Amino acid sequence: MTAPIPAELNPPQRLLLGPGPSMVSPRVLRAMATPLIGHLDPAFLVIMNEVQAMLRAAFQTQNPFTIAISGTGSAGMEAALVNVIQPGDTVIVGVNGVFGTRMADIVGRSGGNLVKLEVPWGQTFTRTAIEEAVKKAGKVKAVALVHAETSTGAQQSIEDLGQLCHDHGALLVVDTVTSLGGIPVTVDAWGADVVYSGTQKCLSCPPGLAPLTVSPRALEVIKARKGKCPSWYLDLGMIADYWAEGKRAYHHTAPISMVYALRESLRIVLEEGLEPRFARHRLHAKALMAGLAALGCAPNAQEGHRLPSLNCVQVPSGIDEAAVRRALLLEFNIEIGGGLGPLAGKVWRVGLMGESSRQDNVVAVLSALEVLLKRAGKVQRPGASVAAALEVYAA
Amino acid sequence: MTAPIPAELNPPQRLLLGPGPSMVSPRVLRAMATPLIGHLDPAFLVIMNEVQAMLRAAFQTQNPFTIAISGTGSAGMEAALVNVIQPGDTVIVGVNGVFGTRMADIVGRSGGNLVKLEVPWGQTFTRTAIEEAVKKAGKVKAVALVHAETSTGAQQSIEDLGQLCHDHGALLVVDTVTSLGGIPVTVDAWGADVVYSGTQKCLSCPPGLAPLTVSPRALEVIKARKGKCPSWYLDLGMIADYWAEGKRAYHHTAPISMVYALRESLRIVLEEGLEPRFARHRLHAKALMAGLAALGCAPNAQEGHRLPSLNCVQVPSGIDEAAVRRALLLEFNIEIGGGLGPLAGKVWRVGLMGESSRQDNVVAVLSALEVLLKRAGKVQRPGASVAAALEVYAA
Repeated sequence: MTAPIPAELNPPQRLLLGPGPSMVSPRVLRAMATPLIGHLDPAFLVIMNEVQAMLRAAFQTQNPFTIAISGTGSAGMEAALVNVIQPGDTVIVGVNGVFGTRMADIVGRSGGNLVKLEVPWGQTFTRTAIEEAVKKAGKVKAVALVHAETSTGAQQSIEDLGQLCHDHGALLVVDTVTSLGGIPVTVDAWGADVVYSGTQKCLSCPPGLAPLTVSPRALEVIKARKGKCPSWYLDLGMIADYWAEGKRAYHHTAPISMVYALRESLRIVLEEGLEPRFARHRLHAKALMAGLAALGCAPNAQEGHRLPSLNCVQVPSGIDEAAVRRALLLEFNIEIGGGLGPLAGKVWRVGLMGESSRQDNVVAVLSALEVLLKRAGKVQRPGASVAAALEVYAA
Repeated sequence: MTAPIPAELNPPQRLLLGPGPSMVSPRVLRAMATPLIGHLDPAFLVIMNEVQAMLRAAFQTQNPFTIAISGTGSAGMEAALVNVIQPGDTVIVGVNGVFGTRMADIVGRSGGNLVKLEVPWGQTFTRTAIEEAVKKAGKVKAVALVHAETSTGAQQSIEDLGQLCHDHGALLVVDTVTSLGGIPVTVDAWGADVVYSGTQKCLSCPPGLAPLTVSPRALEVIKARKGKCPSWYLDLGMIADYWAEGKRAYHHTAPISMVYALRESLRIVLEEGLEPRFARHRLHAKALMAGLAALGCAPNAQEGHRLPSLNCVQVPSGIDEAAVRRALLLEFNIEIGGGLGPLAGKVWRVGLMGESSRQDNVVAVLSALEVLLKRAGKVQRPGASVAAALEVYAA
């Protein structure tokens, strides 16, 4: 039971253009490496306040209860659902990809009465379809939707849905893991009640925390629940007492270094400004998609509902997508994602999130893909994909 | 909904001698700041293997299922319990401090039939008491004990308890959050089935991961359970498929930077060697306790069962412990812990864990405490506490 001691950490240098993690600024890495203070130190409480204020700005909300959950995005999803759902509660979940499927799984584990709203992967839900589902289901505790489906590249419209849910006595739960910091997430304007995200996507912070915001309406529902939340670790009632200014009651040890990292990544987001940041994400996605089209890769998601942060395209016929992706990683040190579930083997997912959303990265991945597709005999006109991207930049 | 952007991160420099986090080596901070690779990158899978092998060495186990849970120590506790317990299962929990109380809470939330075994805080459980409880309870699913009670400084003997539990068809669950890497944790020799820890104590890694090891016996129980685990995020059946070599099925995004940090902290542990490391923890605790005795602070935990990693002592009468602790932090930049629950206001908890367990730190905290207690008129002989510590070192 002794282990050989491995050599010093020396991972390869990768360009991260997959579904996450995205590239992380050296500023964030340096902040993360700051020597620690205690999680109940008065100086740490100041840092928590600062992080909360910046998260509110990113979420575009005034919800006092806006925090970072001590786990990755999926912990945020679980926290959002298990605190709200009591056994027997009806929850409508929009399922059009991996993350809607995961939400549905969690509703089932919580003893909720799951109503699945389904469209094919890559499509999104209309307001009418959601309204009909809510009316049909009777008493609904919550409607849960994925704003940015990382597995398909589809962007769900959330506008107005808060009011619709509230009119029927339901809460609106929204997954913004692949949207927060990359496209508009307007929690208060949406009227959304529980909204969570992850750090390793458009915020360009390492994975490990899940930003979460809870409306006063949802907090009342959570506090009024009968019986304890099934999860102690993710019990928002208790976690609220740690994050609440003036209380700071010990719950669990906060991941201090990750909070340092999130603080710095949020500073970078706000320094750039939300609108310029969203415009940057749109620009580079447009250039990338133009280049990918020139390589024969058609968009996967529904037109008009394509995420700029996660660009999902169909693999040209006759191409072994896994082999190309592997060569891209091992020869060019560029990571992109493959398909999951019904899309396995059929799509590539190219993330341009946060620090990854840059012209040099767009050109790098297009030129590398071109070399690999040419090797497979699929490229007629060398340089066409990069040229198509540059036309977008020149426009 | 805009936030002022706070200044560059610049927390005070603290000496961390509380109940955690402990001091972190610059080597670990540097490793943590390494640029990221993807969580499914073949190079990351090699890193996961290395971490697993080193965790097995630290836990002194051959359990293949030895991993790091993507959350802090409490997430490890929750994972350990909610995967094993099905509604109605009888679980015996040893409650003699905050963390046994927390385990009992989680058993209740999981629908388990909780049998509390109790002794006053600071005391530990005899083998006889545990055996009687198991016999009396009838069919027992698990016995859950805290090896190192961070809230009281008491060390529970675990020797032989695995066999005792197995003889009665029960699993043995052990919390080693404040022991792993500081005092012997011998999972296979104990016959323990599910053992978890945290990174921010004697491993001297920032908080954010929970090392966990599961015996083949417990894994069978987990896989045979009827109905899904109530937690998706902590579902060990699914997490096993991510960590299993050859599978590496996507579950959630691993906290990559934290895994880098844990890898480096485990390298440091194994370079030092477990036995020398344990001896170091014993030596500095002995010196500290001698010094604290000279300041009039009596040990809180049961004699013969005192943790070297977490030294819990009674505050001299007439002292406002919170004021002293605050002055220690703000004037001397030294963090120690206060009491929790029934011990609030009555004890100090001085952690000498991992990198924090050093002679210079012992001398620093004793000399600072002496100044503060002298200010309160409680010190007769200046230098006596440091002298008492130095006598231990000289012996």
